Amino acid sequence: MKGKLTGVGLGPGDPELMTMKAHRLISGAQVIAYPALEDGESFARSIAAKSIPAAARELVIHIPMTIERAPAQAAYDQGAADIARHLDAGRDVLVLCEGDPFFYGSFMYLFARLAADYETEIIPGVSSVTACAAVAKRPLTARNEVLTIIPGPLENAAMQARIEAAGAVAIMKVGRHLGRIRALLTDMGLAASATFVARASLPSQQVLPLVRAPDPAPYFSMILITKAEDPWLN
Amino acid sequence: MKGKLTGVGLGPGDPELMTMKAHRLISGAQVIAYPALEDGESFARSIAAKSIPAAARELVIHIPMTIERAPAQAAYDQGAADIARHLDAGRDVLVLCEGDPFFYGSFMYLFARLAADYETEIIPGVSSVTACAAVAKRPLTARNEVLTIIPGPLENAAMQARIEAAGAVAIMKVGRHLGRIRALLTDMGLAASATFVARASLPSQQVLPLVRAPDPAPYFSMILITKAEDPWLN
Repeated sequence: MKGKLTGVGLGPGDPELMTMKAHRLISGAQVIAYPALEDGESFARSIAAKSIPAAARELVIHIPMTIERAPAQAAYDQGAADIARHLDAGRDVLVLCEGDPFFYGSFMYLFARLAADYETEIIPGVSSVTACAAVAKRPLTARNEVLTIIPGPLENAAMQARIEAAGAVAIMKVGRHLGRIRALLTDMGLAASATFVARASLPSQQVLPLVRAPDPAPYFSMILITKAEDPWLN
Repeated sequence: MKGKLTGVGLGPGDPELMTMKAHRLISGAQVIAYPALEDGESFARSIAAKSIPAAARELVIHIPMTIERAPAQAAYDQGAADIARHLDAGRDVLVLCEGDPFFYGSFMYLFARLAADYETEIIPGVSSVTACAAVAKRPLTARNEVLTIIPGPLENAAMQARIEAAGAVAIMKVGRHLGRIRALLTDMGLAASATFVARASLPSQQVLPLVRAPDPAPYFSMILITKAEDPWLN
Protein backbone atom coordinates (compact mmCIF):
# COMPACT_ATOMS: atom_id res chain seq x y z
CA MET A 1 0.00 0.00 0.00
CA LYS A 2 1.55 3.26 -1.18
CA GLY A 3 1.56 6.45 0.87
CA LYS A 4 -0.37 9.61 0.01
CA LEU A 5 1.14 12.91 -1.13
CA THR A 6 -0.46 16.02 0.37
CA GLY A 7 0.46 19.60 -0.52
CA VAL A 8 -0.37 21.81 2.45
CA GLY A 9 -0.83 25.56 2.05
CA LEU A 10 0.43 27.45 5.11
CA GLY A 11 -0.74 30.97 4.34
CA PRO A 12 1.30 34.17 4.16
CA GLY A 13 3.51 33.82 7.26
CA ASP A 14 1.62 34.29 10.53
CA PRO A 15 1.28 30.72 11.88
CA GLU A 16 -2.24 31.57 13.08
CA LEU A 17 -3.25 32.10 9.44
CA MET A 18 -2.74 28.39 8.79
CA THR A 19 -6.03 26.58 8.35
CA MET A 20 -7.23 24.24 11.06
CA LYS A 21 -6.86 21.39 8.55
CA ALA A 22 -3.21 22.26 7.84
CA HIS A 23 -2.49 22.34 11.57
CA ARG A 24 -4.21 19.00 12.15
CA LEU A 25 -2.43 17.25 9.28
CA ILE A 26 1.01 18.61 10.18
CA SER A 27 0.53 17.70 13.85
CA GLY A 28 0.03 14.06 12.85
CA ALA A 29 2.59 13.86 10.06
CA GLN A 30 4.99 10.98 9.46
CA VAL A 31 7.16 12.62 6.80
CA ILE A 32 7.33 16.34 6.10
CA ALA A 33 9.03 17.76 3.01
CA TYR A 34 9.67 21.43 2.33
CA PRO A 35 11.62 23.65 -0.02
CA ALA A 36 14.67 25.47 1.30
CA LEU A 37 17.19 27.89 -0.12
CA GLU A 38 20.73 26.68 -0.66
CA ASP A 39 21.72 27.95 2.81
CA GLY A 40 19.04 25.71 4.33
CA GLU A 41 16.63 28.46 5.30
CA SER A 42 13.00 27.45 4.78
CA PHE A 43 10.20 30.00 5.06
CA ALA A 44 7.61 27.23 4.79
CA ARG A 45 9.11 25.29 7.71
CA SER A 46 9.28 28.43 9.83
CA ILE A 47 5.53 29.03 9.43
CA ALA A 48 4.61 25.48 10.44
CA ALA A 49 7.36 24.99 13.05
CA LYS A 50 5.15 24.86 16.14
CA SER A 51 2.84 22.27 14.56
CA ILE A 52 5.57 19.81 13.47
CA PRO A 53 5.82 16.77 15.77
CA ALA A 54 9.27 15.89 17.08
CA ALA A 55 9.01 12.38 15.66
CA ALA A 56 8.32 13.48 12.07
CA ARG A 57 11.00 12.76 9.49
CA GLU A 58 11.99 15.89 7.60
CA LEU A 59 13.00 15.98 3.95
CA VAL A 60 14.61 19.19 2.68
CA ILE A 61 14.26 20.04 -1.00
CA HIS A 62 16.94 22.49 -2.02
CA ILE A 63 15.64 24.84 -4.70
CA PRO A 64 18.33 26.75 -6.60
CA MET A 65 17.46 30.43 -7.03
CA THR A 66 18.18 30.64 -10.73
CA ILE A 67 16.42 31.75 -13.85
CA GLU A 68 17.97 28.85 -15.77
CA ARG A 69 15.70 25.90 -16.36
CA ALA A 70 17.97 22.88 -15.98
CA PRO A 71 19.16 23.27 -12.34
CA ALA A 72 15.63 23.84 -11.05
CA GLN A 73 14.27 20.90 -13.00
CA ALA A 74 17.04 18.70 -11.61
CA ALA A 75 16.13 19.85 -8.09
CA TYR A 76 12.48 18.97 -8.61
CA ASP A 77 13.46 15.60 -10.10
CA GLN A 78 15.58 14.87 -7.04
CA GLY A 79 12.93 16.11 -4.60
CA ALA A 80 10.24 14.02 -6.29
CA ALA A 81 12.47 10.94 -6.18
CA ASP A 82 13.16 11.45 -2.47
CA ILE A 83 9.44 11.82 -1.77
CA ALA A 84 8.61 8.78 -3.91
CA ARG A 85 10.87 6.56 -1.82
CA HIS A 86 8.78 7.34 1.26
CA LEU A 87 5.49 6.94 -0.63
CA ASP A 88 6.65 3.58 -2.02
CA ALA A 89 7.45 2.44 1.51
CA GLY A 90 3.85 3.22 2.51
CA ARG A 91 4.57 6.45 4.36
CA ASP A 92 2.38 9.50 3.77
CA VAL A 93 4.28 12.68 2.85
CA LEU A 94 3.16 16.25 3.54
CA VAL A 95 4.78 18.97 1.47
CA LEU A 96 4.75 22.32 3.25
CA CYS A 97 3.95 25.26 0.97
CA GLU A 98 4.02 28.94 1.89
CA GLY A 99 0.79 30.61 0.74
CA ASP A 100 -1.23 28.22 -1.42
CA PRO A 101 0.23 25.09 -3.09
CA PHE A 102 -1.13 25.85 -6.57
CA PHE A 103 -0.59 29.62 -6.61
CA TYR A 104 2.98 30.45 -7.67
CA GLY A 105 5.07 27.94 -5.81
CA SER A 106 7.40 25.00 -6.16
CA PHE A 107 4.89 22.38 -5.06
CA MET A 108 3.25 22.15 -8.46
CA TYR A 109 6.51 20.89 -9.97
CA LEU A 110 6.60 18.05 -7.46
CA PHE A 111 2.90 17.41 -8.03
CA ALA A 112 3.46 17.20 -11.80
CA ARG A 113 6.10 14.52 -11.26
CA LEU A 114 4.15 12.40 -8.76
CA ALA A 115 0.40 12.81 -9.28
CA ALA A 116 0.06 10.10 -11.91
CA ASP A 117 1.51 7.42 -9.63
CA TYR A 118 0.28 8.28 -6.15
CA GLU A 119 -2.86 9.38 -4.34
CA THR A 120 -2.76 13.15 -3.81
CA GLU A 121 -4.59 15.85 -1.89
CA ILE A 122 -4.16 19.63 -1.96
CA ILE A 123 -5.01 21.75 1.10
CA PRO A 124 -5.51 25.34 -0.06
CA GLY A 125 -4.06 28.19 1.99
CA VAL A 126 -4.51 31.93 2.42
CA SER A 127 -2.67 33.54 -0.49
CA SER A 128 -0.36 36.52 -0.09
CA VAL A 129 -2.66 38.57 -2.36
CA THR A 130 -5.57 38.67 0.06
CA ALA A 131 -3.20 38.85 3.05
CA CYS A 132 -1.59 41.99 1.59
CA ALA A 133 -4.98 43.57 0.93
CA ALA A 134 -5.99 42.79 4.52
CA VAL A 135 -3.00 44.46 6.17
CA ALA A 136 -3.16 47.38 3.72
CA LYS A 137 -6.89 47.71 4.56
CA ARG A 138 -7.46 48.02 0.84
CA PRO A 139 -10.35 46.04 -0.69
CA LEU A 140 -9.14 44.08 -3.71
CA THR A 141 -12.06 43.71 -6.00
CA ALA A 142 -15.83 43.70 -6.01
CA ARG A 143 -18.85 42.98 -8.17
CA ASN A 144 -17.93 42.73 -11.86
CA GLU A 145 -14.38 44.01 -11.56
CA VAL A 146 -11.54 41.99 -13.07
CA LEU A 147 -8.53 41.26 -10.84
CA THR A 148 -5.23 40.62 -12.57
CA ILE A 149 -2.29 39.10 -10.73
CA ILE A 150 1.05 39.84 -12.35
CA PRO A 151 4.48 38.45 -11.39
CA GLY A 152 6.97 41.28 -10.87
CA PRO A 153 9.64 39.86 -13.22
CA LEU A 154 7.30 40.26 -16.24
CA GLU A 155 8.85 42.73 -18.69
CA ASN A 156 7.47 46.25 -19.11
CA ALA A 157 5.50 46.02 -22.35
CA ALA A 158 3.61 42.91 -21.28
CA MET A 159 3.08 44.30 -17.78
CA GLN A 160 1.71 47.58 -19.09
CA ALA A 161 -0.74 45.81 -21.41
CA ARG A 162 -2.00 43.58 -18.58
CA ILE A 163 -2.44 46.54 -16.21
CA GLU A 164 -4.30 48.56 -18.85
CA ALA A 165 -6.76 45.68 -19.34
CA ALA A 166 -7.40 45.17 -15.61
CA GLY A 167 -9.79 46.68 -13.08
CA ALA A 168 -7.59 45.95 -10.08
CA VAL A 169 -4.01 44.70 -10.07
CA ALA A 170 -1.72 42.88 -7.65
CA ILE A 171 1.94 42.69 -8.68
CA MET A 172 3.66 39.81 -6.83
CA LYS A 173 7.32 39.02 -6.10
CA VAL A 174 8.36 42.65 -6.60
CA GLY A 175 11.80 42.36 -4.96
CA ARG A 176 14.62 43.73 -7.08
CA HIS A 177 12.16 44.79 -9.78
CA LEU A 178 10.72 47.57 -7.62
CA GLY A 179 12.50 50.49 -9.30
CA ARG A 180 11.54 49.43 -12.80
CA ILE A 181 7.91 48.73 -11.87
CA ARG A 182 7.55 52.01 -9.95
CA ALA A 183 8.88 53.94 -12.96
CA LEU A 184 6.39 52.16 -15.23
CA LEU A 185 3.48 52.88 -12.89
CA THR A 186 4.58 56.51 -12.61
CA ASP A 187 4.51 56.81 -16.42
CA MET A 188 1.03 55.26 -16.40
CA GLY A 189 -0.24 57.71 -13.76
CA LEU A 190 -0.91 54.90 -11.27
CA ALA A 191 2.00 55.22 -8.82
CA ALA A 192 0.51 57.86 -6.54
CA SER A 193 -2.44 55.72 -5.48
CA ALA A 194 -0.59 52.37 -5.30
CA THR A 195 0.24 50.61 -2.02
CA PHE A 196 3.37 48.58 -1.27
CA VAL A 197 3.23 45.65 1.16
CA ALA A 198 6.15 43.45 2.22
CA ARG A 199 6.00 40.27 4.33
CA ALA A 200 2.30 40.62 5.11
CA SER A 201 1.25 39.20 8.50
CA LEU A 202 4.85 38.73 9.74
CA PRO A 203 6.36 40.87 12.53
CA SER A 204 8.62 42.51 9.90
CA GLN A 205 5.61 43.50 7.77
CA GLN A 206 5.75 46.84 5.90
CA VAL A 207 2.77 48.75 4.47
CA LEU A 208 3.72 51.94 2.60
CA PRO A 209 2.59 54.17 -0.21
CA LEU A 210 4.46 52.88 -3.28
CA VAL A 211 6.27 56.20 -3.63
CA ARG A 212 8.02 55.53 -0.29
CA ALA A 213 8.79 51.81 -0.78
CA PRO A 214 12.42 50.64 -0.35
CA ASP A 215 14.39 49.78 -3.49
CA PRO A 216 15.29 46.95 -3.81
CA ALA A 217 12.29 45.54 -1.98
CA PRO A 218 12.15 42.19 -0.12
CA TYR A 219 11.40 39.18 -2.32
CA PHE A 220 8.04 38.66 -0.62
CA SER A 221 6.54 42.03 -1.48
CA MET A 222 3.60 43.21 -3.51
CA ILE A 223 2.11 46.30 -5.13
CA LEU A 224 -1.68 46.80 -5.02
CA ILE A 225 -3.39 49.03 -7.58
CA THR A 226 -7.07 49.91 -7.78
CA LYS A 227 -7.98 51.65 -11.00
CA ALA A 228 -11.70 52.27 -10.65
CA GLU A 229 -13.59 53.35 -7.59
CA ASP A 230 -16.48 50.98 -6.96
CA PRO A 231 -19.65 53.11 -7.03
CA TRP A 232 -21.36 50.70 -4.61
CA LEU A 233 -18.96 51.68 -1.87
CA ASN A 234 -20.94 54.87 -1.31
CA MET B 1 -14.04 53.35 24.48
CA LYS B 2 -15.43 52.24 21.13
CA GLY B 3 -15.47 48.62 19.98
CA LYS B 4 -13.40 47.20 17.14
CA LEU B 5 -14.74 46.01 13.78
CA THR B 6 -13.14 42.81 12.45
CA GLY B 7 -13.89 41.24 9.08
CA VAL B 8 -13.20 37.52 9.32
CA GLY B 9 -12.59 35.42 6.21
CA LEU B 10 -14.01 31.91 6.63
CA GLY B 11 -12.67 30.21 3.52
CA PRO B 12 -14.61 28.36 0.82
CA GLY B 13 -17.00 26.27 2.91
CA ASP B 14 -15.33 23.39 4.76
CA PRO B 15 -15.18 24.64 8.38
CA GLU B 16 -11.73 23.06 8.72
CA LEU B 17 -10.47 25.49 6.06
CA MET B 18 -11.05 28.37 8.46
CA THR B 19 -7.79 29.77 9.78
CA MET B 20 -6.83 29.15 13.38
CA LYS B 21 -7.13 32.90 13.94
CA ALA B 22 -10.69 33.00 12.59
CA HIS B 23 -11.66 30.11 14.86
CA ARG B 24 -10.07 31.75 17.89
CA LEU B 25 -11.73 35.12 17.31
CA ILE B 26 -15.16 33.67 16.61
CA SER B 27 -14.95 31.42 19.67
CA GLY B 28 -14.50 34.49 21.87
CA ALA B 29 -16.87 36.85 20.07
CA GLN B 30 -19.32 39.24 21.75
CA VAL B 31 -21.27 40.29 18.66
CA ILE B 32 -21.28 38.45 15.35
CA ALA B 33 -22.75 39.96 12.18
CA TYR B 34 -23.23 38.17 8.89
CA PRO B 35 -24.95 38.61 5.55
CA ALA B 36 -28.02 36.53 4.80
CA LEU B 37 -30.36 36.14 1.89
CA GLU B 38 -33.90 37.43 2.24
CA ASP B 39 -35.08 33.98 3.40
CA GLY B 40 -32.55 34.18 6.25
CA GLU B 41 -30.13 31.60 4.92
CA SER B 42 -26.50 32.55 5.60
CA PHE B 43 -23.67 30.61 4.00
CA ALA B 44 -21.16 32.50 6.13
CA ARG B 45 -22.90 31.54 9.39
CA SER B 46 -23.11 27.91 8.31
CA ILE B 47 -19.32 27.71 7.84
CA ALA B 48 -18.58 29.20 11.26
CA ALA B 49 -21.51 27.58 13.13
CA LYS B 50 -19.50 25.22 15.34
CA SER B 51 -17.16 28.03 16.47
CA ILE B 52 -19.90 30.51 17.49
CA PRO B 53 -20.38 30.71 21.26
CA ALA B 54 -23.93 30.36 22.57
CA ALA B 55 -23.68 33.70 24.37
CA ALA B 56 -22.74 35.73 21.28
CA ARG B 57 -25.26 38.25 20.02
CA GLU B 58 -26.06 37.74 16.35
CA LEU B 59 -26.81 40.50 13.88
CA VAL B 60 -28.22 39.47 10.51
CA ILE B 61 -27.62 41.75 7.53
CA HIS B 62 -30.16 41.03 4.83
CA ILE B 63 -28.61 41.56 1.39
CA PRO B 64 -31.10 41.89 -1.46
CA MET B 65 -30.10 39.82 -4.50
CA THR B 66 -30.56 42.54 -7.06
CA ILE B 67 -28.56 44.19 -9.79
CA GLU B 68 -30.08 47.55 -8.89
CA ARG B 69 -27.91 49.82 -6.86
CA ALA B 70 -30.26 51.53 -4.44
CA PRO B 71 -31.69 48.53 -2.50
CA ALA B 72 -28.23 47.07 -1.88
CA GLN B 73 -26.82 50.40 -0.77
CA ALA B 74 -29.75 50.83 1.61
CA ALA B 75 -29.05 47.36 3.04
CA TYR B 76 -25.39 48.22 3.63
CA ASP B 77 -26.37 51.55 5.19
CA GLN B 78 -28.73 49.74 7.57
CA GLY B 79 -26.18 47.00 8.34
CA ALA B 80 -23.46 49.54 9.04
CA ALA B 81 -25.79 51.51 11.33
CA ASP B 82 -26.70 48.34 13.27
CA ILE B 83 -23.02 47.46 13.68
CA ALA B 84 -22.15 51.02 14.69
CA ARG B 85 -24.60 50.90 17.58
CA HIS B 86 -22.67 47.97 19.09
CA LEU B 87 -19.30 49.59 18.40
CA ASP B 88 -20.45 52.84 20.01
CA ALA B 89 -21.53 50.88 23.09
CA GLY B 90 -17.97 49.51 23.36
CA ARG B 91 -18.70 46.04 22.01
CA ASP B 92 -16.38 44.47 19.42
CA VAL B 93 -18.13 43.19 16.29
CA LEU B 94 -16.96 40.35 14.06
CA VAL B 95 -18.36 40.25 10.54
CA LEU B 96 -18.35 36.73 9.11
CA CYS B 97 -17.32 36.60 5.44
CA GLU B 98 -17.32 33.53 3.20
CA GLY B 99 -13.98 33.25 1.40
CA ASP B 100 -11.90 36.37 1.99
CA PRO B 101 -13.34 39.70 3.24
CA PHE B 102 -11.73 41.85 0.52
CA PHE B 103 -12.15 39.48 -2.43
CA TYR B 104 -15.62 39.88 -3.97
CA GLY B 105 -17.91 40.12 -1.00
CA SER B 106 -20.31 42.31 0.88
CA PHE B 107 -17.94 43.08 3.77
CA MET B 108 -16.10 45.78 1.88
CA TYR B 109 -19.29 47.85 1.68
CA LEU B 110 -19.64 47.74 5.44
CA PHE B 111 -15.92 48.48 5.81
CA ALA B 112 -16.24 51.54 3.53
CA ARG B 113 -19.00 52.90 5.76
CA LEU B 114 -17.27 52.29 9.11
CA ALA B 115 -13.47 52.31 8.71
CA ALA B 116 -13.05 56.06 9.14
CA ASP B 117 -14.73 56.06 12.54
CA TYR B 118 -13.70 52.79 14.19
CA GLU B 119 -10.65 50.60 14.70
CA THR B 120 -10.67 47.80 12.13
CA GLU B 121 -8.88 44.54 11.40
CA ILE B 122 -9.20 42.19 8.43
CA ILE B 123 -8.50 38.46 8.81
CA PRO B 124 -7.81 37.05 5.34
CA GLY B 125 -9.30 33.69 4.38
CA VAL B 126 -8.77 30.96 1.79
CA SER B 127 -10.36 32.22 -1.41
CA SER B 128 -12.59 30.08 -3.59
CA VAL B 129 -10.10 30.44 -6.46
CA THR B 130 -7.35 28.43 -4.81
CA ALA B 131 -9.90 26.09 -3.20
CA CYS B 132 -11.31 25.25 -6.63
CA ALA B 133 -7.84 24.64 -8.06
CA ALA B 134 -7.08 22.35 -5.12
CA VAL B 135 -10.12 20.13 -5.53
CA ALA B 136 -9.73 20.12 -9.32
CA LYS B 137 -6.05 19.15 -8.80
CA ARG B 138 -5.26 21.77 -11.36
CA PRO B 139 -2.30 24.14 -10.65
CA LEU B 140 -3.39 27.74 -11.15
CA THR B 141 -0.34 29.66 -12.15
CA ALA B 142 3.43 29.55 -11.91
CA ARG B 143 6.58 31.57 -12.53
CA ASN B 144 5.87 34.60 -14.74
CA GLU B 145 2.35 33.67 -15.75
CA VAL B 146 -0.45 36.22 -15.34
CA LEU B 147 -3.62 35.07 -13.56
CA THR B 148 -6.82 36.90 -14.37
CA ILE B 149 -9.92 36.54 -12.23
CA ILE B 150 -13.12 37.42 -14.02
CA PRO B 151 -16.65 37.68 -12.59
CA GLY B 152 -19.09 35.55 -14.57
CA PRO B 153 -21.64 38.34 -15.16
CA LEU B 154 -19.10 40.33 -17.24
CA GLU B 155 -20.42 40.68 -20.79
CA ASN B 156 -18.92 38.72 -23.67
CA ALA B 157 -16.75 41.28 -25.45
CA ALA B 158 -15.02 42.40 -22.25
CA MET B 159 -14.67 38.81 -21.04
CA GLN B 160 -13.12 37.67 -24.31
CA ALA B 161 -10.57 40.51 -24.28
CA ARG B 162 -9.56 39.70 -20.68
CA ILE B 163 -9.20 35.99 -21.42
CA GLU B 164 -7.11 36.67 -24.53
CA ALA B 165 -4.72 38.82 -22.49
CA ALA B 166 -4.32 36.26 -19.66
CA GLY B 167 -2.06 33.27 -19.05
CA ALA B 168 -4.46 31.52 -16.74
CA VAL B 169 -8.07 32.41 -15.99
CA ALA B 170 -10.56 31.78 -13.21
CA ILE B 171 -14.15 32.80 -13.95
CA MET B 172 -16.07 33.27 -10.68
CA LYS B 173 -19.78 33.32 -9.83
CA VAL B 174 -20.70 31.42 -12.99
CA GLY B 175 -24.24 30.46 -11.95
CA ARG B 176 -26.89 31.28 -14.53
CA HIS B 177 -24.22 32.62 -16.91
CA LEU B 178 -22.84 29.14 -17.58
CA GLY B 179 -24.43 28.61 -20.99
CA ARG B 180 -23.27 31.95 -22.35
CA ILE B 181 -19.73 31.58 -21.00
CA ARG B 182 -19.41 28.00 -22.25
CA ALA B 183 -20.48 29.10 -25.74
CA LEU B 184 -17.90 31.91 -25.68
CA LEU B 185 -15.11 29.56 -24.55
CA THR B 186 -16.13 27.07 -27.23
CA ASP B 187 -15.81 29.79 -29.88
CA MET B 188 -12.37 30.67 -28.45
CA GLY B 189 -11.21 27.04 -28.58
CA LEU B 190 -10.80 26.89 -24.80
CA ALA B 191 -13.85 24.90 -23.67
CA ALA B 192 -12.42 21.41 -24.13
CA SER B 193 -9.60 21.88 -21.61
CA ALA B 194 -11.55 23.93 -19.06
CA THR B 195 -12.66 22.57 -15.68
CA PHE B 196 -15.89 23.38 -13.85
CA VAL B 197 -15.99 23.40 -10.03
CA ALA B 198 -19.03 24.07 -7.86
CA ARG B 199 -19.12 24.45 -4.06
CA ALA B 200 -15.47 23.54 -3.60
CA SER B 201 -14.69 21.81 -0.28
CA LEU B 202 -18.38 21.26 0.64
CA PRO B 203 -20.00 17.80 0.68
CA SER B 204 -22.02 18.83 -2.41
CA GLN B 205 -18.84 19.76 -4.34
CA GLN B 206 -18.76 19.07 -8.10
CA VAL B 207 -15.64 18.86 -10.29
CA LEU B 208 -16.39 18.26 -13.97
CA PRO B 209 -15.03 18.98 -17.42
CA LEU B 210 -16.73 22.21 -18.50
CA VAL B 211 -18.41 20.41 -21.38
CA ARG B 212 -20.38 18.32 -18.85
CA ALA B 213 -21.23 21.10 -16.37
CA PRO B 214 -24.91 21.62 -15.43
CA ASP B 215 -26.70 24.65 -16.88
CA PRO B 216 -27.66 26.73 -14.99
CA ALA B 217 -24.83 26.16 -12.52
CA PRO B 218 -24.92 26.85 -8.77
CA TYR B 219 -24.09 30.46 -7.82
CA PHE B 220 -20.88 29.37 -6.11
CA SER B 221 -19.24 27.83 -9.15
CA MET B 222 -16.14 28.55 -11.16
CA ILE B 223 -14.45 27.77 -14.46
CA LEU B 224 -10.66 27.26 -14.54
CA ILE B 225 -8.72 27.74 -17.77
CA THR B 226 -5.02 27.22 -18.34
CA LYS B 227 -3.87 28.57 -21.67
CA ALA B 228 -0.15 27.81 -21.70
CA GLU B 229 1.57 24.67 -20.45
CA ASP B 230 4.36 25.62 -18.05
CA PRO B 231 7.59 24.20 -19.52
CA TRP B 232 9.10 23.86 -16.05
CA LEU B 233 6.56 21.21 -15.17
CA ASN B 234 8.63 18.66 -17.08
